[in-house]
Amino acid sequence: MIKAYSKDLTYSYVEGFFPTFELIKYRKDDLIAIYVNSDAINSDGLNKLKDFVDEKYFIYSDKAFSISKSKDNAHVLAVFKKKLKNLNKNDDHLVLVNPSDMGNLGNSMRSLLAFGFHNLAIITPAADIFNPKTIRASMGSFFHINIETFSTFEEYLNKYSREYYPFVLTSSKPLADVKFKEKCALVFGNEATGLPTSIYNSNNVKIEQSDEVDSLNLTTSIAIGLYELKKQKESIK
Amino acid sequence: MIKAYSKDLTYSYVEGFFPTFELIKYRKDDLIAIYVNSDAINSDGLNKLKDFVDEKYFIYSDKAFSISKSKDNAHVLAVFKKKLKNLNKNDDHLVLVNPSDMGNLGNSMRSLLAFGFHNLAIITPAADIFNPKTIRASMGSFFHINIETFSTFEEYLNKYSREYYPFVLTSSKPLADVKFKEKCALVFGNEATGLPTSIYNSNNVKIEQSDEVDSLNLTTSIAIGLYELKKQKESIK
Repeated sequence: MIKAYSKDLTYSYVEGFFPTFELIKYRKDDLIAIYVNSDAINSDGLNKLKDFVDEKYFIYSDKAFSISKSKDNAHVLAVFKKKLKNLNKNDDHLVLVNPSDMGNLGNSMRSLLAFGFHNLAIITPAADIFNPKTIRASMGSFFHINIETFSTFEEYLNKYSREYYPFVLTSSKPLADVKFKEKCALVFGNEATGLPTSIYNSNNVKIEQSDEVDSLNLTTSIAIGLYELKKQKESIK
Repeated sequence: MIKAYSKDLTYSYVEGFFPTFELIKYRKDDLIAIYVNSDAINSDGLNKLKDFVDEKYFIYSDKAFSISKSKDNAHVLAVFKKKLKNLNKNDDHLVLVNPSDMGNLGNSMRSLLAFGFHNLAIITPAADIFNPKTIRASMGSFFHINIETFSTFEEYLNKYSREYYPFVLTSSKPLADVKFKEKCALVFGNEATGLPTSIYNSNNVKIEQSDEVDSLNLTTSIAIGLYELKKQKESIK
């Protein structure tokens, strides 16, 4: 019987048809089982899922859903091996230094994919990448991106040497004025403490904002950074 | 004694020093009382607050904090009258049609202010503007913007006739190509259902994104729309 999620388990799970299809599409090898709730036995979603997944993976049990922390009643719950894929060195990267909130982490994955990027480096300590809450916030995009963790920013940079752009509120260079180098990295700090100054460089960039408010929240800042990067890449093509 | 928040009360409240200062700064007339937790009696925050607020407003009581739904231990809890201020017709507007999530609503207020805008129209039914959860998500920016509610989009437009830009995923016009007219409105729909087609017009605009993901979330889309609008206004100056 499946256990409620804990960081020590070698598996995690995701609820709902949409993210389960994403899992099947991009990480089929990591699939362990799909629990099916009795109210979903004759559903279109399940029938469609069966076109892609062997019957042996399905377990018909309402009990498994007791581990769910979601407010919605999920019809399926897909269990998968905790595995990560290394970053692609030829692509642009998003680097999050010590993100502490699982919702923010998942949302950042969603924005990353929405703008056509696929590589996320996470500098630990950080919120749990595999927690069902993170996966849920990612809306399934978790399964379609490469994620790699590092214990320091230096470790990341040693492996994936590249031009990088720290997002720093005190910088004087507005985002719109930055010309991003190819195969670069956008670097964002922790929700409360921002980036350590040791990561600052001459590329420091800020998203211009009014001083009437504390600051944009982290996921908003990340989305805007990625949006500008995408726009530049497209105007170059 | 203050009651736990309900939609029917004529007052609401906000927790924490930062948003309380915002309330004092921009809506002092709406202040009813400030509850002070015993652990904050000698705090710098409270001493500073006393420079701006008459002693008669302070109530020293830990009990009041039992109504708090926040995870953090707040030091002060400021009670204020539920009041809204009409929009400024000479400014740009953000229009949210039936937003259903209080967190999204508050976050949108934060982004609005962050990009230097101050006018938010809400088409009802919508999440409760005054709920402490909305105010909390707004990080105090609630107190610094004009919010006006309307029962239909037509009602809004009759009062504030202007060029408006519906954000619609199926539009073929990318945000970056739009030349916003002066004193315009950006219009966003509900989290799940988007905008009703009756609001569509020839200005329909989309934020270009990959088809690999369901869509950007509402608060992210709003922030990106406002970011582009701000950029254009600045390049015109």
